[in-house]
Amino acid sequence: MQHAAVPADRPARPVITLITDFGLDDWYVAAVKAALLKHCAEAALVDVSHTVPPADCLRASILLERALASFPRGSVHLAVVDPGVGSDRRLLIVHLADSWVVCPDNGLISWSWHRLGPGQAYELTWRPADYSSTFHGRDILAPVAGMLASGMAAVELGRPISRPILLGPAPAPPGARTGQIIYCDHFGNAVTNLCAQAVSVPDSVVVRAAGRDLGPLRRTYADVPRGQALALIGSSGLLEIAIRDGSAAQVLGLRVGDPVHIAETAQPTPDRPTR
Amino acid sequence: MQHAAVPADRPARPVITLITDFGLDDWYVAAVKAALLKHCAEAALVDVSHTVPPADCLRASILLERALASFPRGSVHLAVVDPGVGSDRRLLIVHLADSWVVCPDNGLISWSWHRLGPGQAYELTWRPADYSSTFHGRDILAPVAGMLASGMAAVELGRPISRPILLGPAPAPPGARTGQIIYCDHFGNAVTNLCAQAVSVPDSVVVRAAGRDLGPLRRTYADVPRGQALALIGSSGLLEIAIRDGSAAQVLGLRVGDPVHIAETAQPTPDRPTR
Amino acid sequence: MQHAAVPADRPARPVITLITDFGLDDWYVAAVKAALLKHCAEAALVDVSHTVPPADCLRASILLERALASFPRGSVHLAVVDPGVGSDRRLLIVHLADSWVVCPDNGLISWSWHRLGPGQAYELTWRPADYSSTFHGRDILAPVAGMLASGMAAVELGRPISRPILLGPAPAPPGARTGQIIYCDHFGNAVTNLCAQAVSVPDSVVVRAAGRDLGPLRRTYADVPRGQALALIGSSGLLEIAIRDGSAAQVLGLRVGDPVHIAETAQPTPDRPTR
Repeated sequence: MQHAAVPADRPARPVITLITDFGLDDWYVAAVKAALLKHCAEAALVDVSHTVPPADCLRASILLERALASFPRGSVHLAVVDPGVGSDRRLLIVHLADSWVVCPDNGLISWSWHRLGPGQAYELTWRPADYSSTFHGRDILAPVAGMLASGMAAVELGRPISRPILLGPAPAPPGARTGQIIYCDHFGNAVTNLCAQAVSVPDSVVVRAAGRDLGPLRRTYADVPRGQALALIGSSGLLEIAIRDGSAAQVLGLRVGDPVHIAETAQPTPDRPTR
Repeated sequence: MQHAAVPADRPARPVITLITDFGLDDWYVAAVKAALLKHCAEAALVDVSHTVPPADCLRASILLERALASFPRGSVHLAVVDPGVGSDRRLLIVHLADSWVVCPDNGLISWSWHRLGPGQAYELTWRPADYSSTFHGRDILAPVAGMLASGMAAVELGRPISRPILLGPAPAPPGARTGQIIYCDHFGNAVTNLCAQAVSVPDSVVVRAAGRDLGPLRRTYADVPRGQALALIGSSGLLEIAIRDGSAAQVLGLRVGDPVHIAETAQPTPDRPTR
Repeated sequence: MQHAAVPADRPARPVITLITDFGLDDWYVAAVKAALLKHCAEAALVDVSHTVPPADCLRASILLERALASFPRGSVHLAVVDPGVGSDRRLLIVHLADSWVVCPDNGLISWSWHRLGPGQAYELTWRPADYSSTFHGRDILAPVAGMLASGMAAVELGRPISRPILLGPAPAPPGARTGQIIYCDHFGNAVTNLCAQAVSVPDSVVVRAAGRDLGPLRRTYADVPRGQALALIGSSGLLEIAIRDGSAAQVLGLRVGDPVHIAETAQPTPDRPTR
């Protein structure tokens, strides 16, 4: 997005985004926001999602990368999916893509690190005088996110470490011809780990998933008739499988982990209707 | 709502409201907010709803009119229900009720135009240097909403057109005695397109819906016993069908599009319990 | 949470939290926020939850106490679960725990009053020039919350009363050995009305619920194997029943109102696996 000048390393107003598996029914998100506002009263707090399924670190990891890619440099991203709360798992600050992430060290940073990184990770050593053993999101991570948004340096809050825990899947390497579904969205679009760069000449490939030939890469949903399946490069720069005005996940039965293949063709493939 | 003085044509702090069919599970709403904050960092961002069923332009259209009616003049309302993204459908700025709407030209503005307008529409000609073909909400509409909130003039972003695409239903005309359900809310209240003005003497009418006589217009839910159906003028100034402490949509089987009738009576109708 | 200095009786930036049973599908929450921003444009608006089941005053009451306990003194908390809207039920301002609550007088303040209070209640006498009979949250309560957040005194808006309507359950008294489930959260943790103070020596008790012996109090979820039930003092300072990486409410069939017992043991109880 082209834009008016902002300072090189800070947004015009501090931004803190939130990703959790807390759901929307309880007081947990508000308690985290109370801690954020105590430490950075002027921050704009932006919910990414709180409906991550409990303990689904892969999904949260992908949301986190999208938050990093969307917000200006200097933003702070707080991700709390933390089934190991109160155990000896580490807590992290990660400086990556000119922004800050605060999260447990349980793989949440993986997709960002793989796609936008590597970054510099810090093990969080800061602790408040008193804190619970079941809600570190509120008691430790949120205050730290607020302090970072207020301009405090990471080295005052933790010590550099060489590498956080990194889990798969990673983006498919350049030239890869097989990837996998990593995320299904609200519309039923099934996003893969195949990057746009892997398929630079859209007309020269045929995409195959769920045992079906989905034709060449399209530019947008409206390029095929209603109800037809298609493959395209989605708004996150990844190959995704969709159905125009329908749910690819549901109709094609696609699930996270399912393989997706790209085959080269000698000449552009003509449209073929789905049956 | 009576209130302290605000400047004639701007709220005390820029307000941008959001209506989408993006759901709450993905990163799409946050990506839109990132674009809004880049262009208007100090704006108050207010979610109206993101749970509009995919491509349900009628429902989004009604929510949009409510946002226009609720927020002070000068507010900016961004509505993104956009199944035709990437096709040749137009994008709009609409100045209406002293406020701004940014949305695709697919009927989303209809209910506001019918009820609060007409307004002045502009076809959006502004485009960023680079943008996706699947997420114009983030890449085009949100930056434009942010720029309007920052004070940029609509004529710098688009060119006046005579009329956007307008879809039905419209508000029932004064004196109408038949309307239809246009919206069912979270509580199961079924809202019609019959305006308060159509029934200025509540006691002199009987409302009929779902094959049932619902008696005269009531003032509030608590005017009938628990579990009883009633008709009243709801908080949006429209006749609605409700059940006290229950769901009229569910119990009476009311759906969007169902007819609702008003009959004059010679004398006020006494209460009659539902069976 | 330890923290930077804020003025004794006001947060650095006005905060207004919201609890309603409006759901997320309609325009009702946005209409309330429009009224709040009209009266306090600079306020940080924080959603606690809008998915309280319609008319569930107990659940809203517990959320409200958590909001009071989480946010800095001087914050304003707006709770709108109001099945009696338009009837002669009173509307309240309550000053409690150095903060302000605005809500109907239908028991919503109970859990806060029992646990953090008592406070000073005022019957709201302020009314706008014109207002609906079905949406006092928007027309009366929200403007009042906004005015309080802007610094207006409660005595300008209402008259002191001795006591609001208080409903049960209350926190179990010190030394109590029987309590009840008062709240089940998104993760399936079942929270009781037994306070931490009632069980100061965790190793010396055995918790029993749903006909099962849950062993001694644990410190955190990760203290037992995956899938095992446990009891611990949760992040709200209350005894709760949980299952590690699972839902206690679902697996143990726990519901609001179910009894929970604490028994003293002569010596610490060894772990026993669930079957």
